[in-house]
Amino acid sequence: MSDLKNDRFLRALMRQPVDATPVWMMRQAGRYLPEYRATREKAGSFMDLCMNPELACEVTLQPLERFPLDAAILFSDILTIPDAMGLGLYFSEGEGPRFKRPVRDRAAIDALGVPDPEQDLRYVMDAVRTIRRELNGRVPLIGFSGSPWTLATYMIEGSSTKTFARSKGMMFDEPALMHSLLDKLAAAVTEYLNAQVAAGAQALMVFDTWGGTLSPRDYKAFSLAYMQRIVDGLTREADGRKVPVILFTKGGGQWLELMADTGCDALGLDWTTDIGDARARVGDRVALQGNLDPCTLYASPQAIRRSVGEILASYGKGSGHVFNLGHGIHPTIPPEHAAAMIEAVHELSRPYHAT
Amino acid sequence: MSDLKNDRFLRALMRQPVDATPVWMMRQAGRYLPEYRATREKAGSFMDLCMNPELACEVTLQPLERFPLDAAILFSDILTIPDAMGLGLYFSEGEGPRFKRPVRDRAAIDALGVPDPEQDLRYVMDAVRTIRRELNGRVPLIGFSGSPWTLATYMIEGSSTKTFARSKGMMFDEPALMHSLLDKLAAAVTEYLNAQVAAGAQALMVFDTWGGTLSPRDYKAFSLAYMQRIVDGLTREADGRKVPVILFTKGGGQWLELMADTGCDALGLDWTTDIGDARARVGDRVALQGNLDPCTLYASPQAIRRSVGEILASYGKGSGHVFNLGHGIHPTIPPEHAAAMIEAVHELSRPYHAT
Repeated sequence: MSDLKNDRFLRALMRQPVDATPVWMMRQAGRYLPEYRATREKAGSFMDLCMNPELACEVTLQPLERFPLDAAILFSDILTIPDAMGLGLYFSEGEGPRFKRPVRDRAAIDALGVPDPEQDLRYVMDAVRTIRRELNGRVPLIGFSGSPWTLATYMIEGSSTKTFARSKGMMFDEPALMHSLLDKLAAAVTEYLNAQVAAGAQALMVFDTWGGTLSPRDYKAFSLAYMQRIVDGLTREADGRKVPVILFTKGGGQWLELMADTGCDALGLDWTTDIGDARARVGDRVALQGNLDPCTLYASPQAIRRSVGEILASYGKGSGHVFNLGHGIHPTIPPEHAAAMIEAVHELSRPYHAT
Repeated sequence: MSDLKNDRFLRALMRQPVDATPVWMMRQAGRYLPEYRATREKAGSFMDLCMNPELACEVTLQPLERFPLDAAILFSDILTIPDAMGLGLYFSEGEGPRFKRPVRDRAAIDALGVPDPEQDLRYVMDAVRTIRRELNGRVPLIGFSGSPWTLATYMIEGSSTKTFARSKGMMFDEPALMHSLLDKLAAAVTEYLNAQVAAGAQALMVFDTWGGTLSPRDYKAFSLAYMQRIVDGLTREADGRKVPVILFTKGGGQWLELMADTGCDALGLDWTTDIGDARARVGDRVALQGNLDPCTLYASPQAIRRSVGEILASYGKGSGHVFNLGHGIHPTIPPEHAAAMIEAVHELSRPYHAT
């Protein structure tokens, strides 16, 4: 704890007093930064970059050099676990992630093993250790994983999908088979996140990118139940400090109460929920992270500042808010616009934390 | 009124007693039907099909020949209004709708006129008249339009978009300019829908496909406010019978109370909201239409039947429910699976309407 120079992010997640609202951005290490594009070019493919701990560390730190961000997030991909399970992840230009060997039947699912993080995902753990060392206590490091449901959709479809034809087909037709896949994934994600904490991650986030495509009933049974299992199995303390856990279901604004019931520390919010309403709904059970529409960053710095002010005002006084976009920053956003957002958060939030 | 042989759909929208829950499907006249694909082939392009009243009538009636559906919906596209405004709509294979002349500045928006439906959109009105005549009172005919916000996004982007970069950029940076476009579109949609009623439409639906991509504040100001204006300006009675109006914001499950406040007759629900919860929230102010996950139709007829039963049970006893998918039927769904859904709705709903 003593080595952390800026702990606003961790304090806000624990709803402890802060001087200003902390801020980071999903995909803050990404294509909108020319220095990221240069490193990516040097690395080769996207996965080459993820698998090289030195370069993954380099891109993780790039946005911190530019902006006074309050947290760093491990540079990696949510699909490292299925790749380590043997599905053969690759990225085809303009089409997103693909698997050479999607899983679509009982035999394929039964054959999957739970990866040993320090062996099968060693490159991720090495990246965590390298980044933590290079951060040298500047800000906390966030580790992450995809949710079991989200990973399962990619593993079954073999690629991104608009319709979820195969994955939802399996869910509706062979629920027991889907549960056996999700069961394995929950175990794998728990071990993976705990290994990240052992390697140096100081907070954890579970990205449930596709939970919001489910009906409430299916969300509870096929996504939330497995995030619950993960929350229950996580190491929640390291170096004498709590390791907060953030759950983020994109499109999950109707289910915040259920998500808070898992015992996680914070909820990620996309921009379709008013953060003040969300705070009233979850009370003091969890902190909230969000929730600027990422498209706001296409607008002028003045418009960005106004929108930041509205979100801060809606959340209101006191700690428990980590400012973020409601989704990853788009690749065509000018970096100066991100700078305007970050500056506005730190400046405009101070009155809400004055005692 | 006397000429309508099956008025379950209209009665349910007015929350009047029915013998069974009525059902129709968004995109029921569409690519999942081989007979549709044959007519489409004969017509040429998708817009050629829309612009030919006889063929538009033919495809509108096709699903009614196969299934005991309780409503027909005009076969057309939501982008007919911008096309009539001079933007030059065309469809490029696999890429969806495009405009030759998108509108991106004050001059382009000021130059837009409000189309005269009987002149500039005559082919739509002719299709409505033809379909109404050919239906011969079998079931009611639904007319429809896109919402102003939804139309504006296509008009500004010039195509489908994942990021809404230009349209949201305009909304954030030049709200007055965006409002002047939405203002014109609200007037155009109102006239267009009223002309459809004059031509024979017996219920109306406004598709707000992209309202759910907005923050609550922006939704109210840039989408809902203009749907309110439309509801206020619509002809609500024809042939001595009420013409019910359905508002559907995809992803709008968090805003049902606000939508019900517009004075519309019914709300469309996507599948991310539990319909029983939605009913409790809106009370007896509006009927509800929905809300089976369209992916359910990839599953077996038994699984479909079970899911239909769950939705009917969640809605509970009494009228006020029109069964539908939560979004358009996917092109690769086997028609027998749609049949299983429709049969299950009619069979399983009767106990909920017994007196």
